[in-house]
Amino acid sequence: MRRGTSRDIRTANRYEVLRQIIAQSPTSRQELAAATGLSLATVATLVGELLDLRMITEVGFEDSAGGRPRGLVAVNASGGALIGVDIAETYVHVELFDLALNVLARADEDVRPGESLPEQVVGHVAAAVGSVVAQAGIEGARVLGVGVSVPGQVDRATGVSEYAPNWNWHDVPLLDLLTEHIAYPLYLDNPLRASAVAELWFGAVRGRGDAVVVNLGTGVGAGLVLGGALHRGVSNSAGEWGHTTIVLDGRLCRCGKNGCVEAYVGASGIMLTLRELCPDSTLLHPEDQTATIDALAQALRENDPVALKVVRETVKYLGAGIADLVNLFNPEVVVLSSWVASALGEPLVAEVREGVARHALPRPMAATEIVLSPIPTDPVCLGAATFALEGALQSVGQRPAPQRARQHGKNRTVTP
Amino acid sequence: MRRGTSRDIRTANRYEVLRQIIAQSPTSRQELAAATGLSLATVATLVGELLDLRMITEVGFEDSAGGRPRGLVAVNASGGALIGVDIAETYVHVELFDLALNVLARADEDVRPGESLPEQVVGHVAAAVGSVVAQAGIEGARVLGVGVSVPGQVDRATGVSEYAPNWNWHDVPLLDLLTEHIAYPLYLDNPLRASAVAELWFGAVRGRGDAVVVNLGTGVGAGLVLGGALHRGVSNSAGEWGHTTIVLDGRLCRCGKNGCVEAYVGASGIMLTLRELCPDSTLLHPEDQTATIDALAQALRENDPVALKVVRETVKYLGAGIADLVNLFNPEVVVLSSWVASALGEPLVAEVREGVARHALPRPMAATEIVLSPIPTDPVCLGAATFALEGALQSVGQRPAPQRARQHGKNRTVTP
Repeated sequence: MRRGTSRDIRTANRYEVLRQIIAQSPTSRQELAAATGLSLATVATLVGELLDLRMITEVGFEDSAGGRPRGLVAVNASGGALIGVDIAETYVHVELFDLALNVLARADEDVRPGESLPEQVVGHVAAAVGSVVAQAGIEGARVLGVGVSVPGQVDRATGVSEYAPNWNWHDVPLLDLLTEHIAYPLYLDNPLRASAVAELWFGAVRGRGDAVVVNLGTGVGAGLVLGGALHRGVSNSAGEWGHTTIVLDGRLCRCGKNGCVEAYVGASGIMLTLRELCPDSTLLHPEDQTATIDALAQALRENDPVALKVVRETVKYLGAGIADLVNLFNPEVVVLSSWVASALGEPLVAEVREGVARHALPRPMAATEIVLSPIPTDPVCLGAATFALEGALQSVGQRPAPQRARQHGKNRTVTP
Repeated sequence: MRRGTSRDIRTANRYEVLRQIIAQSPTSRQELAAATGLSLATVATLVGELLDLRMITEVGFEDSAGGRPRGLVAVNASGGALIGVDIAETYVHVELFDLALNVLARADEDVRPGESLPEQVVGHVAAAVGSVVAQAGIEGARVLGVGVSVPGQVDRATGVSEYAPNWNWHDVPLLDLLTEHIAYPLYLDNPLRASAVAELWFGAVRGRGDAVVVNLGTGVGAGLVLGGALHRGVSNSAGEWGHTTIVLDGRLCRCGKNGCVEAYVGASGIMLTLRELCPDSTLLHPEDQTATIDALAQALRENDPVALKVVRETVKYLGAGIADLVNLFNPEVVVLSSWVASALGEPLVAEVREGVARHALPRPMAATEIVLSPIPTDPVCLGAATFALEGALQSVGQRPAPQRARQHGKNRTVTP
């Protein structure tokens, strides 16, 4: 059975202390104790561990009223590097971060429609990872890990992509394939969980207990933060909100079922709504979701009536779907994330707030804030890099233990 | 922010150890450590506390292969009494339990359609509580607490019934009213959470991390167990699955919205389906949900085609609605509870399993078991009594601290 062991708690507390230091450097152990609710003794121990890991450094003292001067610590930005990989339907986006989670380098690779073989996608990832390390000009040994987000259902423990709907992958041993090219510790998960952990560490969920991060992209889903931590479910597939039923026997979804939320509010669902409402619209770029959503966003900013109509029709479903999450989870905050939400921006959020209020029960609704993700960069890259950071923090006091022990690859390896 | 403090952990561990002892008495500290994953030292401390509280007793020794004889402990059934109160739409049901959670006495009061005033309902509760204490013939001082479940939305901390749809109660200070008649420590919550905690302690969720307890009664909802503990949400209203949308713009629900799950699968939704499919059916007892569901259950056991048709039509919605829970939470188990589920029994569960499989994603579906509640008595009474037990365990090492400090009542008090 699952339970909070004292080691889990210690790991969670270590996350929390580092999160606070990243958010506010320099800071004192006393401030950290006040901000986290942990005892000063616990904070002192955890700060000591982070100092040993060279993730933070001592940066001087501050006067305390009448007492001894207090030692100050700050994140040691150059103490290591983290890499986040966002594998999406049409691109691979990679960012390299310092330990303050500043982006030091970026690389993009297009994944063309024909390129659905795992080896092709892995080739793009390896090339982009090699590129960011070279651009940043850092020693490979300083890379603490690489987090990799791949759409669909993922077994983190074995590093297997169990099901990726866009390429129809079934049980692809993605981490094994990546290991042939990348010699850093690797951590695999999916975009729902990556964007949720990004919000939890650095975005709208910082300091909150219960939150839902709604991803609106080609696929849609909900990253769940419950009790201050990611909720994964028993087989790491929780959050498949995109495939909950909003219209029984409704539109066909790409999952093969009917009436799923995703069939109405995913990028291709929105395109279908546009086609139904206004078949000749110049906003429609057949076969190009990004161009269509961008055109819709631009038109929305100009108060174009067709764009407004499409958004309102979409929000009929989106509002009801998010109201379901509010009624079920009773969260403090619902964060709208991913590229469709970010393109349509605040005008979408305003419509969503009204749409949710029409369906949610008044009391949970009153307790919930609905906001756009405040993360200025790619939240999935940031979240993937955070998985690597969490991995490095988890291994404190153990032998270095990434998700699985990795050997150096056989060929084309990006070596430390 | 919410976090797992060391005191929360200690309380959770205390629950877990007592849960194990109740499940299997007599037992040794070594067996408890093995069953809970806690260290022997932690178990020894917690067992010491439970011995001090006289909730458990030393009952002898067992040989250990070659080692020292091991001390055995068992639940001290007569060490205290717990009372559970299930306030429902049409009745108040009260049970008194010993510490092994055996029922020692029961009392029922009918709540007639006209009796919608809080004072009237409170009068029934006080009478039934007085009755079970008298029947059991125990000293009042041995009653550790009274858990009270009331339908709708509840503020546990203040003891207020924020909204009870059946009587249209808004912000009724129910615990204050009860305190005028009942002098034992009182704990207020709702049936969703009571039935979930009953399954967690004594039913199908024992030893599981993530589970959903689906209540099918007049109202419907989902009690959520996540990470081995009850998920309440930020304002104690999580689990309002009955008011998630399954058919956008569908049937009117008593909450005032359209297309809610409850409008199709609650007792009156099932009655409406029966009326729609077969207006002249002899199964239909207008204005009497219990009689109608009982008739349906009897007909179902006799393979009556109308009953089967009604159940299958209901499961079209129920299956999709439970599939939503499977896709969102990725639970180990879904438990069907409350009186409609219990009346329709295994034939319903068999239909539900098929209905859910038609809608849920294959991987979370494969990880989920769907079962009928195995609790032989009223799970809501049992869960309400468990809240009182948790309250008593929470106050270890503090002054006795029920949910709110209670003084002796003014009149008609059931005194210890």
